[in-house]
Amino acid sequence: MSARTRAVSGLPVHIDRSSSSPLPVQIAAALREAIDASLIRPGEAVPATRDLSRRLGVARGVVVAAYEQLIAEGYLAAAQGRGTLVHPDLARTSPGAGAGAGVDPARPAIPVDARPDGEGRAPTDESLLGAERPAPLAPGAPITEGVVSSAWRSAWREAAASLEVAATVAPPLGDPSLRREIAEHLRRMRGTPRAAADVLVTAGTRDGLWLLLTALGATRGRTLAVGVEDPGLPSLRGAVSRAGASIIALPADALGLDTARLPDGMLDAVIVTPSHQYPLGGSLPLARRRELLAWAHRNGVVIIEDDFDSELRYTGTPLPTLAALDDAERGVVVLLGTFSRTITPALSAGYLLAPAGLRALIEPVRRDLGGPVSSVVQSALAAYLASGELRRHTVRMLRRYAVRRDLVSERLAGAERARVRPMDGGLHAVIEFSGDPERARRREADVIAEAEPMRLGVQALGRYWQRTDRDAGMAGLVIGVGGDDDAAFDAALRELRGILDRV
Amino acid sequence: MSARTRAVSGLPVHIDRSSSSPLPVQIAAALREAIDASLIRPGEAVPATRDLSRRLGVARGVVVAAYEQLIAEGYLAAAQGRGTLVHPDLARTSPGAGAGAGVDPARPAIPVDARPDGEGRAPTDESLLGAERPAPLAPGAPITEGVVSSAWRSAWREAAASLEVAATVAPPLGDPSLRREIAEHLRRMRGTPRAAADVLVTAGTRDGLWLLLTALGATRGRTLAVGVEDPGLPSLRGAVSRAGASIIALPADALGLDTARLPDGMLDAVIVTPSHQYPLGGSLPLARRRELLAWAHRNGVVIIEDDFDSELRYTGTPLPTLAALDDAERGVVVLLGTFSRTITPALSAGYLLAPAGLRALIEPVRRDLGGPVSSVVQSALAAYLASGELRRHTVRMLRRYAVRRDLVSERLAGAERARVRPMDGGLHAVIEFSGDPERARRREADVIAEAEPMRLGVQALGRYWQRTDRDAGMAGLVIGVGGDDDAAFDAALRELRGILDRV
Repeated sequence: MSARTRAVSGLPVHIDRSSSSPLPVQIAAALREAIDASLIRPGEAVPATRDLSRRLGVARGVVVAAYEQLIAEGYLAAAQGRGTLVHPDLARTSPGAGAGAGVDPARPAIPVDARPDGEGRAPTDESLLGAERPAPLAPGAPITEGVVSSAWRSAWREAAASLEVAATVAPPLGDPSLRREIAEHLRRMRGTPRAAADVLVTAGTRDGLWLLLTALGATRGRTLAVGVEDPGLPSLRGAVSRAGASIIALPADALGLDTARLPDGMLDAVIVTPSHQYPLGGSLPLARRRELLAWAHRNGVVIIEDDFDSELRYTGTPLPTLAALDDAERGVVVLLGTFSRTITPALSAGYLLAPAGLRALIEPVRRDLGGPVSSVVQSALAAYLASGELRRHTVRMLRRYAVRRDLVSERLAGAERARVRPMDGGLHAVIEFSGDPERARRREADVIAEAEPMRLGVQALGRYWQRTDRDAGMAGLVIGVGGDDDAAFDAALRELRGILDRV
Repeated sequence: MSARTRAVSGLPVHIDRSSSSPLPVQIAAALREAIDASLIRPGEAVPATRDLSRRLGVARGVVVAAYEQLIAEGYLAAAQGRGTLVHPDLARTSPGAGAGAGVDPARPAIPVDARPDGEGRAPTDESLLGAERPAPLAPGAPITEGVVSSAWRSAWREAAASLEVAATVAPPLGDPSLRREIAEHLRRMRGTPRAAADVLVTAGTRDGLWLLLTALGATRGRTLAVGVEDPGLPSLRGAVSRAGASIIALPADALGLDTARLPDGMLDAVIVTPSHQYPLGGSLPLARRRELLAWAHRNGVVIIEDDFDSELRYTGTPLPTLAALDDAERGVVVLLGTFSRTITPALSAGYLLAPAGLRALIEPVRRDLGGPVSSVVQSALAAYLASGELRRHTVRMLRRYAVRRDLVSERLAGAERARVRPMDGGLHAVIEFSGDPERARRREADVIAEAEPMRLGVQALGRYWQRTDRDAGMAGLVIGVGGDDDAAFDAALRELRGILDRV
């Protein structure tokens, strides 16, 4: 559409100086497209920043900024001594990226990670195959076989039989009785007593995250800068960048975000997992919680509390949410919750809890775009929660997860240079490799390579670190303890033990 | 966060020249916020462009551009001889905007219009009241009382009893069997034979629209310019501007978009209702369809076909969709469909049909953000469609809508200077006022003012015109012919007739 564009030979990177879009954003978009279209492939080098900036006639810093953004998003990776590459992991998630040029519609742009709440697993639906069961050790999947109870069936039967429900448009902010039930759930299970009006029904964590970032982006009138924990979940990063925000990695340790190293004056929001840091499982100590809140209030930063699995806790009493420490009117914490782990990801339902000041930004956006959750779902879920079945189901499931976790310790006991880290809840276990860091990292890669053809679903622990300085990261494995099939779970553990003994 | 801001006395309009956000966007955002926060109220004048530009130290064109955007969004209105005002209609949709300064969380930012598919009705959920039944003559609500059939109940019962469904994460692009059923629906009911892989499941028209605009925005790397029909639906405009796009009104007549007056080189997308122009009801003739397609291909414009109610047609054979004329690979038409009118808005389910080239942009966004529709809903809906019940239900409903429409003609027969326009389908009727245009417009305002306290739900026909030159618009009323209560419908018609006879 514009005459003032310049192409780089080989790669179709165009810039348009008359556009309102900043140059780094334009360059990043062009590279993303080229990667999505397989014009450059995983593991291949992108042009050196010096070359590309010279060819485009822009300052080198412009190209560096674009590359940094794409590294944060997982499109590119910095390789020591080899410049910048298309991230090799992209290959794993694109089985369909085959021969021929052009755009491959079956190709995901960003490696979809196993969300710990199961929301992000990517079934092979491109070819319209049926939805696939997850691999036996893939993190994120809950045990769902106990979900179909009589309370569940009767909740749906009543919702489907009701003329009232069939005639009801789901209110954009959510069904009033469901909002009340969720507020009650937060009070009882998460130590967070807040009014039902503070609760919005969402289609899940990513829906809530996108909604919040859209609202915030419109208000601040610029590209948002969103901090994420490092290590942390790659999957939410995809949602952040789709909302047009840029991502900044913030150092975290086993207890959670390192609040002594928070930058002043540069972030609009930060995503944290204070109750159960992913993947290491720590709980943010109260002193850090207070420090985080004070920093956020001082800097006008919105804290996005990803409370993805705190209900699933075997030992000890969980700290209440970060939101519970904050002010219900002028607070800065937005809590994102989901029923994907406690009930089933089949619901595609979750919630967002926000103080009044932030709701004033979020609600108009939701009203204009409409709520995505069917009123049949909302009515059934409200009835299910009101029946008390979620609490009973959670108690039953905790027993099963504890058995699974004991089995992990048993099957892996005595494996050399590998220990199962203690974990007080959640649906995953972390196996840490000890010994020389360089050797541990090589072992991680070797174990993953051996496990891959067996489709065990095991994840490399190191991939949750975003810092290109890999020394920061640990080496090991992340495995899920959910999934419905006990026998398949045990068999997969035995196979994994076999691999660990070999490599 | 920035030091280089300037405030206008009275109104908190700040600009930040170091921001990457264009100045008109910053000014529009600030004014939107001031309006949302009731700092300026409906009907009040905003500063003259000359004054505001001088005070901010920007070119006057910058302020003009911001005002034009806000006029297109419905925030502001240009009043002859009185400059630019906050749109007086905003008052109607904000019953909660009362005394006191500050932000009112109950306040919708943009007047939420009755979507013709019922998706946009805004229940008063702020105060957590139960969802309200729509007013008897509000356009958009279908008749839903026939929805709860044995096929409906058994579809939900089976979905809720299935262990398989409870263990299934809904694939981001939709359940494969549902995608197949929707493709079959499009083939049989809309003359559009396309592969199931071209179908994506959405939470409704606005979800599909937002998804497409997000994907398109990331690719084009600039603020999107989206054309809308004038007259046309205000509600989709809200979704467009929330997706960060700017809106350009395109002249339409009773047959639909005026394809002889399409601008070259300035639009990224255009939203059209070729099968049933809203509100006038025309069907775009084949010659205009071809002209539109040729123009879009020439200009790289994506055509968004809002196919909101074409299945509901009493007379004649509908033209197939515009999508059916286009190429399944390299085409430019994205069709948005919904089950909100043919079944019920309680489903919050619809679909998007896109050619392969555009799917390559859309699918990665959906994968990163997740599909919003529960797999229980998708499974139940697939079974419902497979049972053939939608076709039977549609036939039954068409008979009822025909009876309603006859009743409209009967009750309004002989009313002075008012005629019911012929309409060959859909859920609404248009009553056109004849005689002197100025008087007709005054009568429109008077009728609406009288009908308002009776909560009839009648809409002013003139408000569907966006052009500030009101001579372009017609005067009259738009009423819905749906809603479950036959007696309330008839009573409301009689009241309306009484008003028409008085004013």
